[in-house]
Amino acid sequence: MAYDNDNIFAKILRGEIPAFKVHEDENVLAFMDIMPQADGHVLVIPKTPAVTLLDLPADAAATTIQAVQKVARGLKAALNVEGIVLMQLSGEAAGQTVPHVHFHLIPTHIHHLGKHAAEMGDMDKIKALAEKIKVAVAAEFA
Amino acid sequence: MAYDNDNIFAKILRGEIPAFKVHEDENVLAFMDIMPQADGHVLVIPKTPAVTLLDLPADAAATTIQAVQKVARGLKAALNVEGIVLMQLSGEAAGQTVPHVHFHLIPTHIHHLGKHAAEMGDMDKIKALAEKIKVAVAAEFA
Repeated sequence: MAYDNDNIFAKILRGEIPAFKVHEDENVLAFMDIMPQADGHVLVIPKTPAVTLLDLPADAAATTIQAVQKVARGLKAALNVEGIVLMQLSGEAAGQTVPHVHFHLIPTHIHHLGKHAAEMGDMDKIKALAEKIKVAVAAEFA
Repeated sequence: MAYDNDNIFAKILRGEIPAFKVHEDENVLAFMDIMPQADGHVLVIPKTPAVTLLDLPADAAATTIQAVQKVARGLKAALNVEGIVLMQLSGEAAGQTVPHVHFHLIPTHIHHLGKHAAEMGDMDKIKALAEKIKVAVAAEFA
């Protein structure tokens, strides 16, 4: 599938639309999912344009999963949670809604996972969680 | 959490118990999940001992996700599917049942995902799928 430069994550990467960012470096951006499947639901995306994990260049896959590890450790520390679900959907047929590869980190149990891309969260709550998570994630990338 | 050398995936890695393998190299092993959440459910595990993704050394995380990409492309080709769900559970509190880090690749839609670790699959069917997947995955690693 061809990459669409106007997808919502491309716009977030270019700063054209806002996001509650919890980490950004030359390779990746991590920000809050505004349709959370649990409190503290974060997305980690490579800056490399790619629609799915299957299309992503191998070096970008490596830097992205390493960032996912650090964000997950930050999430665990910030929210004092013991379990984190990583979910990554490749293709509309899997339920992928934004055509830029993204890793979901969701602090919950797989059997309690909320429905994907189902309803908007409470923005004040998400913002407060973002601030807490950002501090802990920064410590992991330090 | 300390790594338990007697977990079932450690035993599979040592060849002490059988598995329907679809790929093995110096870094990773990929094999069929015998409690599939959809037909063609494959697990990819690093050979490096680690309980969760959060504990896995960064270099092993990189080689594992790169293997996940190749196995996913093989799955897509073998089964002619358009969507693949990647799921990775860190911690019992997330639903992790085997204490060796593993990535699930499940050819389905997130809304149709079967329950995790819920019931044994049909071994003859899994074996037949493994043979088909193995051929396509080998082409990706070639």
